[in-house]
Formats: sequence, C-alpha cells, structure tokens
Amino acid sequence: MRDGLRVGVVGATGMVGSILLELLERRRLPVADLRAFSSGRAGASARFKGRRLGAPAPSWAALSDRDLVFLASSDEVSRRWGKALARAGVWVIDDSSAFRLDPSVPLVIPEVNGGELSPRRRLIAGPNCTITGAAVAGWPIHRRFGVRRVRLASYQAVSGAGKAAMAELAAQARGSKAPARALPRRIAYNVFPQVGPFDAAGDSSEEAKARSELRKLWSAPGLPVSATAVRVPVLRGHSLALWLETRRPCGAAQARRLIAGADGVRMSRDYATPLEAAGTAPVHVGRVRPSGASPNELALWVVSDNLLKGAALNSVQVAELLLKAGWLKRR
Amino acid sequence: MRDGLRVGVVGATGMVGSILLELLERRRLPVADLRAFSSGRAGASARFKGRRLGAPAPSWAALSDRDLVFLASSDEVSRRWGKALARAGVWVIDDSSAFRLDPSVPLVIPEVNGGELSPRRRLIAGPNCTITGAAVAGWPIHRRFGVRRVRLASYQAVSGAGKAAMAELAAQARGSKAPARALPRRIAYNVFPQVGPFDAAGDSSEEAKARSELRKLWSAPGLPVSATAVRVPVLRGHSLALWLETRRPCGAAQARRLIAGADGVRMSRDYATPLEAAGTAPVHVGRVRPSGASPNELALWVVSDNLLKGAALNSVQVAELLLKAGWLKRR
Repeated sequence: MRDGLRVGVVGATGMVGSILLELLERRRLPVADLRAFSSGRAGASARFKGRRLGAPAPSWAALSDRDLVFLASSDEVSRRWGKALARAGVWVIDDSSAFRLDPSVPLVIPEVNGGELSPRRRLIAGPNCTITGAAVAGWPIHRRFGVRRVRLASYQAVSGAGKAAMAELAAQARGSKAPARALPRRIAYNVFPQVGPFDAAGDSSEEAKARSELRKLWSAPGLPVSATAVRVPVLRGHSLALWLETRRPCGAAQARRLIAGADGVRMSRDYATPLEAAGTAPVHVGRVRPSGASPNELALWVVSDNLLKGAALNSVQVAELLLKAGWLKRR
Repeated sequence: MRDGLRVGVVGATGMVGSILLELLERRRLPVADLRAFSSGRAGASARFKGRRLGAPAPSWAALSDRDLVFLASSDEVSRRWGKALARAGVWVIDDSSAFRLDPSVPLVIPEVNGGELSPRRRLIAGPNCTITGAAVAGWPIHRRFGVRRVRLASYQAVSGAGKAAMAELAAQARGSKAPARALPRRIAYNVFPQVGPFDAAGDSSEEAKARSELRKLWSAPGLPVSATAVRVPVLRGHSLALWLETRRPCGAAQARRLIAGADGVRMSRDYATPLEAAGTAPVHVGRVRPSGASPNELALWVVSDNLLKGAALNSVQVAELLLKAGWLKRR
C-alpha cells in the first residue's frame, strides 16, 4: 500500500483504543503503517491485522512523522501532544475532552456538523459519549423545527468510566463486598446520579459537558440544556430519556419520519436497549411521542454504544470524511 | 387488647403484604385480631407477632366482620372486594390501581393530602410507587410556588414488578440465558423504557398513571406531566430525575430549605441511592439545583423505597391517620 497512511494510535491498549484498531481494520482504512502507543507499561501490546504490536510510551519522534494520530487516552496526554502535532502537519483526532470547547478546534460528529472540518484545522475533537446520542437523534428535529430547550436523563454504562469500573461491576455482581474505588458508589444493583465532580451550580462535569458540547455541535450558543447524568449497572451502551421542545410545532409521526431518514440513526419498532445496541454503529431512537408537558415538545428514547458512536467509531468516521475530502493523505 | 382492631390483609404472602404485616407489628398498631389472606394456594401462610397464620383465599364471611382491610393483591381482587366491604362499614385501604382515579375514592399520601380523608369515605387508595416520590418531594414547592410543569425519568426497581421479576434478575445476573418472562426484556446489565403496556399516545401505563395520579394527589387537574418510566437492574428503591417548572421563581437554596422542612422527606447531603434508601421510610431528596433549561425550573434527584413509602408504609400511615381522627375503631 504505497499511498497508505502512516497512522498512530495513542491509548491503543485501552478500551476505546483497542476498538479503534479493530475499526481501522474492519472498515478498510488505507493504513500502510500503524504504530500503537500506551502509557508505556513493560510488555504492553496491541493487535492490528492479526499482528501483535509493541505499545511503547508516545514520543515526538515516533508521532510526528505520522499522517494521522488518534488520541484515545487522557486529557493530559491529549494536551501534551494534540496542538504540537497539528502544528507539525499531522492530522489529530482526539477523543478526550481537552479541546472540545476550544474555539480553534472543531468538535465534530460527521452526521451533524461534518461541514466544520477544514483543511486548515488539523486538530479535531470528538464529543462526549453521552451527548452524542442526543446530538444525532435531535439534529434533524433541530434543523427543521428549531429546538428551544433540551432536557435529558441518562442511563450510562460503566465502560464510560474505563476498564476498572467494568471490573468493579463484575466483582460486585459476583458478591464482592469490596468498597467502590473506580466509581463513587457501589454500582451493582444500584444507580447513582454522579458522573464526574460537581461544580458550584450543582451540575456534574458530565452534565456541564452535555450542555456546552451540544451548543457547539448544533451551533446553538445559549441553547438551554438540562441534563441529569446517572450511572447504571450496564456494561456497554448509554441510554437517554430525552425531551426536545421546539419553536415550531412538530408532530410525533413527522418527527419519526424525519429521524428515520437521518444519517447515523436507526429507528426502533418500539425501543432499543443497551444490550441490543452494544456493538452496533447507529444511534437507536424509539418511543418518539408528544411529551404532554408542553405543546411543542417531544419525548424520545435514545440508545447508542458509548465506545463506538460515542467514541472510536465517530473518530474513524471523521478520518473517513477527511480522506474523502482529499485533505488527509500520505505526506 | 379489648378495643383492638380486627384487621384483614389480602395478599399477605406477597411482597407488599408481608411488609404490611411487619409494619403493623413494628409500628404498634392496636391490632387485636389479624387475618391473613392469599390466593388460597394450599399451605400458604404468613407471620405476625411471631406466630404463623394460615392464609386462605378471602371470603365475604371472613372479611366483612373486620374493622380494617388492607388490599395488597391485584386490581381484580381489589375490584371484587373494595367497594362492597366499604359499603358494609369496613375501612378499606387499597394498594392496587383499581380505584385510584375513581372520583368517589380519595387517593391519599398523608404528608400531601391527608385532608382528603373523611369519615364517610371508607375506601381509600394509595398511589403508584413511582409517582409517590415526586408527589412528596414536589409538594412543598407546589404549595408555595405553584408547579406549572413536571417532567421525570424513572429508574425503577424490579420489585415493583413482583417476586418473579426479582428472581428473574437474580437468575440472569448469575448467568442464566433463560428468556425474559416476568419482565418484557432481559434486565440484568440492561435497562428498558417499558413499565406496563403502551397506550395509543405512546405512553406506558406507568407513565399515564404518573400523570393522572399526580394531578389528583395535588388537586391540580390539567397539570402537564411528562414521564419516561424505565426499569433498571435494582432490586428495591425507585429513583427519579425530576424537573419542576414553577409559576413564581424559586431559588435552589430556598427549595432545599422548604423540602428539608417538609414531612416525610429526608434531604441528602449530596444524593441518596436505591441501595441506601431501601428499607427506609422517607423520600430522599438530593441534588436540588437550577435546571438550566428554563428560568423558573429546578432539577432534583428523588429516591424512595417502592415497597415502603411507595406501598405498604403509605397504607399503614393512612390507617394511623384514621385512628388519630377517631374514625377507625372497633365496631
């Protein structure tokens, strides 16, 4: 593959990183040469196209000759490498929250605002996994009827909090009385409304991200958004009870047709559950109905895989769009 | 106990019924003679004050000489006995949904609308376990500031669907691949937005009950209420993400003070979880904050034990109020 891309994946041994590698392979991106990076723990390795790759700690020398680097590690790691690599001409697609609200960085979901991509902005952020479902499902309604107010309650899988949180749920479900470590409370047979630390206004960081990222994704500064983010004992798949109040009246049947025709969405016959949505690409939308709380308001049920559309898949789709535009190529 | 009450409990071997018996004992109601009833399965029995009682199928002869009968079985059983017993002079406290919306039957939560009780209305209904938390937590706000619109998303424990649903969760959590029977979908490591059948408007019966029962409890006909009722893999304790839009502005600190001073509520330092609330009497309220979606709107997190305040405890508290008023006594 002579014109194939030189690609780097930072955080390749993590949950999102390993799925990224799988997707790069499965979706046949033109990868000529792949380098995997991790925190540098001895013996760390990743798999790509049936081969085992070493996964050393990232270095400037090993990253800066790449055509494309995916950052799927922490905010700190993204801050360290993101802007410097982009300035050096590397395309950087970042899964962390480090740059999402940076006015110089496009925050992109291809189906919503792929038009924000440009050949001059080489650092691109992907949104938080929770707001992704609401942004994709609500976009056709917002575009056509103007969403005035958004309210959502989330049912978030523990994989959003990393591998340790998944192991904690599994251990507790098997009967372990060990105290919560990776998560703020016991999660097996429980739920808790705390995803990230609380700010002075009383919102958790996840709830604040939902508001600010949706505003940026929809180019709707000042859009009133109220979120209550709740962790539930589910391994993979974030669900949302979503309310959309619109400027102009929108019937439920009309909304269903619009959403069903939108990119990246699968309309459920009744509703999807996280067990069904896990491992699938689309945002699943169901139970679209008049809310009953306000005349111009719809209630919806939205489920998406937090590791796929909420993270790795969105990043790969951004890369595909850059390829298609002819901007991302072998240097 | 010469003046003690002759009490009957229909559904005494069920989840709510057995807790009712416990509460009658623990809260020292003046029970002189207790009869337990069940569906009449051979060998069915219940426990009260350390003794084992037979639990035959109910009969008119065995029920109609009671001073007080608790109905904690199905809507069908309640319809069969409720009005007939009340007409015969028996006080009847019903936990089913059979009479909740009947205009001749008071629907009562003592802390909210105990004033609806009267010596002439001997059949009294208790509300649905899901709306109970919202009704108690929101009542001090409604009374003082006028609630204009209510939105809620629930996180409902499987015990609300009965013993078979609890066994189903336990079996699935241990790895059983058996299909869902008691519940509409697999519940272990999953959530689903279906509590009861869906109506033509797209609401589940639980969501429709939330709307109509809250209107009756608050004497607020026409109050716009939108609910999304979701089952989660929790054994006991219903949680709510609740939004209250008020007519007059209400600050979060003010709301917190009002709610903390209300009967039947415990204000959490940050928030309660179902594991913490299970087995406790009050409605736990936390995370009271400005919603951000609308200027006069608060977001709250509410948790209560669906078998206690949501069912058995509320019924016993109604009986206590009737005793205190001097209406319920030995005939």
